[in-house]
Amino acid sequence: MISIEDVSRKELEDLFLLADEMRGRRTDDLKGKIMASAFFEPSTRTRLSFESAMKRLGGEVIGFSSSEGTSIDKGESFSDTIRMLDRYSDVIVIRHRYEGAARRAAEVAEVPVINAGDGRGNHPTQAMLDLYTIWRKFGCIDGLTIGILGDLRYGRAANSFICGVSKYKVRLKLISPPPLRIRHEVRSKIGIDFEETFDLEKVLPELDVLYVTRIQKERFSDPSEYEKVKESYRITSSTLMKAKKDLVVMHPLPRVGEIDVSVDVTKHALYFDQAANGVPVRMALLKVIFGVV
Amino acid sequence: MISIEDVSRKELEDLFLLADEMRGRRTDDLKGKIMASAFFEPSTRTRLSFESAMKRLGGEVIGFSSSEGTSIDKGESFSDTIRMLDRYSDVIVIRHRYEGAARRAAEVAEVPVINAGDGRGNHPTQAMLDLYTIWRKFGCIDGLTIGILGDLRYGRAANSFICGVSKYKVRLKLISPPPLRIRHEVRSKIGIDFEETFDLEKVLPELDVLYVTRIQKERFSDPSEYEKVKESYRITSSTLMKAKKDLVVMHPLPRVGEIDVSVDVTKHALYFDQAANGVPVRMALLKVIFGVV
Amino acid sequence: MISIEDVSRKELEDLFLLADEMRGRRTDDLKGKIMASAFFEPSTRTRLSFESAMKRLGGEVIGFSSSEGTSIDKGESFSDTIRMLDRYSDVIVIRHRYEGAARRAAEVAEVPVINAGDGRGNHPTQAMLDLYTIWRKFGCIDGLTIGILGDLRYGRAANSFICGVSKYKVRLKLISPPPLRIRHEVRSKIGIDFEETFDLEKVLPELDVLYVTRIQKERFSDPSEYEKVKESYRITSSTLMKAKKDLVVMHPLPRVGEIDVSVDVTKHALYFDQAANGVPVRMALLKVIFGVV
Repeated sequence: MISIEDVSRKELEDLFLLADEMRGRRTDDLKGKIMASAFFEPSTRTRLSFESAMKRLGGEVIGFSSSEGTSIDKGESFSDTIRMLDRYSDVIVIRHRYEGAARRAAEVAEVPVINAGDGRGNHPTQAMLDLYTIWRKFGCIDGLTIGILGDLRYGRAANSFICGVSKYKVRLKLISPPPLRIRHEVRSKIGIDFEETFDLEKVLPELDVLYVTRIQKERFSDPSEYEKVKESYRITSSTLMKAKKDLVVMHPLPRVGEIDVSVDVTKHALYFDQAANGVPVRMALLKVIFGVV
Repeated sequence: MISIEDVSRKELEDLFLLADEMRGRRTDDLKGKIMASAFFEPSTRTRLSFESAMKRLGGEVIGFSSSEGTSIDKGESFSDTIRMLDRYSDVIVIRHRYEGAARRAAEVAEVPVINAGDGRGNHPTQAMLDLYTIWRKFGCIDGLTIGILGDLRYGRAANSFICGVSKYKVRLKLISPPPLRIRHEVRSKIGIDFEETFDLEKVLPELDVLYVTRIQKERFSDPSEYEKVKESYRITSSTLMKAKKDLVVMHPLPRVGEIDVSVDVTKHALYFDQAANGVPVRMALLKVIFGVV
Repeated sequence: MISIEDVSRKELEDLFLLADEMRGRRTDDLKGKIMASAFFEPSTRTRLSFESAMKRLGGEVIGFSSSEGTSIDKGESFSDTIRMLDRYSDVIVIRHRYEGAARRAAEVAEVPVINAGDGRGNHPTQAMLDLYTIWRKFGCIDGLTIGILGDLRYGRAANSFICGVSKYKVRLKLISPPPLRIRHEVRSKIGIDFEETFDLEKVLPELDVLYVTRIQKERFSDPSEYEKVKESYRITSSTLMKAKKDLVVMHPLPRVGEIDVSVDVTKHALYFDQAANGVPVRMALLKVIFGVV
């Protein structure tokens, strides 16, 4: 499970149905199975929801939560580290700062490898839970108007979500400051029409879903440019006055100011449910991977 | 479970009886339950005894042992982090450097929150195991003469212990250098008579329990003052020659010189048993919280 | 389990047979048991294979993967830390940078202590899995010609392997640069004949097993001396052209250039299997220690 592109609509649909079944469940399906939780780059949310999912299925977890103090630190090659994990576990969940790391791991390992985010590349299980969240909210994804806001150039959550959602017949609005527009190679993979804009206010009234992502200061050469963008893309409860009554606001989290806490209490806020959906979706995925469905 | 003040004598008594039952036991009472072990500030003893307790009850643990590399590091708000843990687990055990953090977490989370120490504030499960240790040793707590030695101003273990023990009819001797006397707001909460002194030697012969805590150098503006206090409050086997035959010496641990190793082999030393009691007391508490008693 | 010296040939043989039984198995033998994984010094391979072994036997793990943030950091004595682990767990697995740490822990603790590497001293479970790997490959160990290459002075894996293998009737070739020859106290413990040389090329054609270890730059006062040694001891597929057809190359891993990746695809490469054997050997050892064989 390296990229959301490798997953068909049918497979996603089956996953969503299975995730629905898994909500709140505890099983012994993966009793005796061991997940290697290989977080070369730290991540709280993704790591803990994977571990929670594995344990709710009766499985066990070994691993590390940063590359500090691992044999990588001692100069071991990435391939050798993966070969070790391959022999100590039944599935490897990997987060790494370099794009392509998960694919490389999958080439080396005999056990299944799940990409939990690699560089600016892919974060397929994030896209799965994002899509599941929309599917669950609206009953379907086709026909919706979906805006994606923020750093569409470097953000892997945004990238994977764009790839995932473009499997559906949606109207796609990509909202970003010009320097953070989607990269050429992502653009060429989107099989549906989409509109690019920097103007949130203009497209907001049409949206059913507004997917917000973080914009990092480091991406701008001119700090004042960053401040301007940051301010204009900050979502507050008043921003949403011009939105559809049923608009939902999503965010892969963590947020650092992109969505004001005033939004939390509105009916638009779906990001906490979205985060919670990480557990049943990852339970479903693990069940599929181990063939216990 | 935020503060020892919220717990009645009756509840403590029930907890002690249940802890007695739990000694050395392994059960499946919490099979399928997940504890989030959220140690924003490191702690070996408290964390490992909580995790040991959870696992002895058949439960599972996810979490982190320091805030390094967590989403807090990326700028996520405390509330957002707690909301995530809330959705991935069935109980949150939280240690944090800021007073009030556990109470704030309990307001945000829907699952139960256990305070494992917040700033200079509370450390209620430490007080529970301290009281349990005395109860188990003497068969009761009422009627004893209890001395508490060290940093009574900033030490959260001492604070929680003072609040806990003052639920009983004990003679309380608070022994500390003047700058480290109990704070006004703690003083006003103690419902029983107590004596404050800096003179250990004077009160030692009366004591049934001597509860020693660490004094940190940083609390003194004058280093020579610290050295003097440190030396006069250092417990050795000869210090204890003037004590009652049945005096027990306690310490929340870790100790760094307050109690000399010469005390370890005397009958007075109760601090290792005290530390060990962390497991059955926390097992009992978890059973109460999950309603499996 | 502190030193490979304490283990007899008969005990090793029984362990190997049990390890063979454990390959690929998942049991409930250690259900309810808790291992304290006390890695004061980081180690990925040893830690994860111990944890994988414990979990495959149905047991649980608590612990820490570096001394950072533990109570040792706060100034607690090693003995006090061990006493705590002793009370929270059923077996302690300890890795420490100081020679003798594991033996000290075993004196303090009541539960069994397993040495997972102490300073330049011992790494007995590494020696067990090394010997098991040879035993499994050749059906026996007696009669083989075994070369050990690298840092024989400071390397604990090499030291423990030398001690372990000299329980057998093997022809031993110790290949190292003169400053990294075995220490006097190790030399005196080897009960069999052995040859010391710096010349790999000379002895290579006789070997059935070539056990390679890492040479650390810090061991040389003259950097150019290090570079020379490093180059001449680097194993590539062409190095092995002069070797026996059935020669196996082993390495405790991680490697950082001592064995070229060109060797990985040859039939000589046994180091990945060797690493994998860590799991069944440690499962067998845990079963023996808990008396569930």
